[in-house]
Amino acid sequence: MKGIILVIDGMGDRPIKELNNKTPLESANTPNMDKMVEEGITGIMDTIRPGVRPGSDTAHLTLLGYDPYEVYTGRGPIEALGIDMDVNPGDIAFRCNFSTADDNMIITDRRAGRIQEGTDKIADTINTMNLADDVEVIFKESDGHRGVLILRGEGLSDKITDSDPKKEGKKPKTVKPLDDSPEAKKTADIVNKFVEESFRLLKNHPVNEKLISEGKVPANIVLPRGVGEVPHLKTLDEKFGFKSACVAETGLIQGIGKLAGMDIIKIPGATGGINTDIDSIHKHIIKTVKDDQYDFILINVDGADEAGHDGDYLGKKGFIEKVDVIMGDLREIDDIVLFVTADHSTPVSVKDHSGDPVPVFIKADGLRVDDITEYGERAAAKGGLCRIRGSDVMQIIRDLMGVTDKYGA
Amino acid sequence: MKGIILVIDGMGDRPIKELNNKTPLESANTPNMDKMVEEGITGIMDTIRPGVRPGSDTAHLTLLGYDPYEVYTGRGPIEALGIDMDVNPGDIAFRCNFSTADDNMIITDRRAGRIQEGTDKIADTINTMNLADDVEVIFKESDGHRGVLILRGEGLSDKITDSDPKKEGKKPKTVKPLDDSPEAKKTADIVNKFVEESFRLLKNHPVNEKLISEGKVPANIVLPRGVGEVPHLKTLDEKFGFKSACVAETGLIQGIGKLAGMDIIKIPGATGGINTDIDSIHKHIIKTVKDDQYDFILINVDGADEAGHDGDYLGKKGFIEKVDVIMGDLREIDDIVLFVTADHSTPVSVKDHSGDPVPVFIKADGLRVDDITEYGERAAAKGGLCRIRGSDVMQIIRDLMGVTDKYGA
Repeated sequence: MKGIILVIDGMGDRPIKELNNKTPLESANTPNMDKMVEEGITGIMDTIRPGVRPGSDTAHLTLLGYDPYEVYTGRGPIEALGIDMDVNPGDIAFRCNFSTADDNMIITDRRAGRIQEGTDKIADTINTMNLADDVEVIFKESDGHRGVLILRGEGLSDKITDSDPKKEGKKPKTVKPLDDSPEAKKTADIVNKFVEESFRLLKNHPVNEKLISEGKVPANIVLPRGVGEVPHLKTLDEKFGFKSACVAETGLIQGIGKLAGMDIIKIPGATGGINTDIDSIHKHIIKTVKDDQYDFILINVDGADEAGHDGDYLGKKGFIEKVDVIMGDLREIDDIVLFVTADHSTPVSVKDHSGDPVPVFIKADGLRVDDITEYGERAAAKGGLCRIRGSDVMQIIRDLMGVTDKYGA
Repeated sequence: MKGIILVIDGMGDRPIKELNNKTPLESANTPNMDKMVEEGITGIMDTIRPGVRPGSDTAHLTLLGYDPYEVYTGRGPIEALGIDMDVNPGDIAFRCNFSTADDNMIITDRRAGRIQEGTDKIADTINTMNLADDVEVIFKESDGHRGVLILRGEGLSDKITDSDPKKEGKKPKTVKPLDDSPEAKKTADIVNKFVEESFRLLKNHPVNEKLISEGKVPANIVLPRGVGEVPHLKTLDEKFGFKSACVAETGLIQGIGKLAGMDIIKIPGATGGINTDIDSIHKHIIKTVKDDQYDFILINVDGADEAGHDGDYLGKKGFIEKVDVIMGDLREIDDIVLFVTADHSTPVSVKDHSGDPVPVFIKADGLRVDDITEYGERAAAKGGLCRIRGSDVMQIIRDLMGVTDKYGA
């Protein structure tokens, strides 16, 4: 018996006038999911709690059985894991932007003209920095203008502010300690030094000289934000005895999977958008689900969320229909407990995550099959699961797998 | 965008044979609320948790986003605020009864013949008391036989018992400390002294001499109960950045509003009963809702609760129909998130608060409108909100207002 959580990222939505007051999911043609709903049990779910707008990271941590209020420290560590950096519990990690500053260190472009090439060479230079004898600077470029900074050493803290001014025309913010500890002060001092040093080292960097010669803006400063201490999580193996795999498109979700000790299944061609290589995703999902070594699998497809953020209701509807094709194959697979959900709603009218509950269904043997026959936000609200929470999911799946301990006698 | 919680106090009920096995709400003619339910989303709500019978005070604290188990210390502080006394966090406040005692201090009438006049002059005398050098005695009369005592000073505690014997024919109870602290002992001693001193001071008070000459019973002793330390609550402004107003009939709810830092809108003619001045309430609700300075408004109308306590199902039904007229105007107002609910059920068959969930609905833009078309306890149980809790309400409203922070990335 195998447990699976399949997350259609950001799928939940609100009624849209142009879709005849239906949501993208309600208006999408999803014969396979409708059939699975008919054969299964449905409900709505507050991933964190009613009205709380979850990030994808806190939502996935919750779905995997972790309490985000306990273990979520910020986005830095998740991003570091997502780009395959080796992180240790206790490391202080930051998301960074390669940015452009003028001679007075005023930020003129927060994304350095959305630089595409050469950031690996800039990263090499940053990795030569020595900011303190007992603290290691580890930097890696990510996609485009993004990168990740890790500070490793004794006496550090994530109780500090961001350096990113969040808008152009301003200097980098001076990073400040958020508490009175010497650790916070030390870390804030190091990050301030990092920003200045990045400006000093990158001003005349060959990559930037080339960019300027091409009439482009240079990536001459690096701005850390989203600080977090890498938490030590019990793995799913330690928690539940599950050998597990994560099939996901984005670094963010892969990072969560790594924190939870899951094998990361890379999907060539996956972009996280609505034009992702859905066939490649399809193939890798089915292959992993059929791989006997795994007891538990987390699957995340990301396009519906992107379409929600873009306000693209037709794109969202179309992407859900693409996912439905994959469902046709999953429906044929026996001996699985499959929990299908979104991690949060991303209504196209809001263009961001909202606190609306998400529609869920379960495919498994022996369920109390209800009378709902189509997959949609409002149909699900009438389902046999009523209204549950994200923190219930692992427990429900494990119960249906028959692997839980009885509580009491 | 403005958030509103409208509480029809005690509205929830159980089926009544004489109403053809409908509840007062189900049998009431409420065209406006039915229409709003049709255009909105409905559900049932456990204000505290299933089966818990909330007081109106703990219920309203919960609805406003406070944890009553953390901040509710007793009714004294709420009553003090409700009659406009200046209270400070740390004050020890009591509800009091003006009562009648015989020469042996045996209570012969707990409500002093429901005294109506002269309690202000008795209060003046009580305020001359000096019970301890470092403790101030502050007393104010309320309606009828009711009053409020505040003890202000260092080294006090609310961990003490009541003095009110709760029935006639007994002496006042000796107030006892509930823990071993010197603060509890000191406070118990002071309250015992207060009761004795009230008897000594009031025996021959001019107001009482006049009452006796009129053949009435005197108000010759004061019995404190419902002790609580005035809590320090974060205001709604501090919690949510909301400039807020409270439109309520009773001192109890106004007291909660004051604790939460709300402006109190007084309603001339409001009595809290079914014969209250509903037109005045109507006018003040609409005026406040249209007042641009407020981000958030708490509204409470009290008559349905009174009718429930009185076992008056026709009165309850009729009062709900009066409230429905106000709803007609609220329905026309745009750019609001309106959450309509009861704070608890007060079934006419129980004549007291019960733990039955209450029916709720939301009017707002972009909702996942469900297929419920009438407002009633059992119709609401089939609504798209399913079953929520009172502690979710502020979060849901703020999410629909679009003012929450995302938790995570």
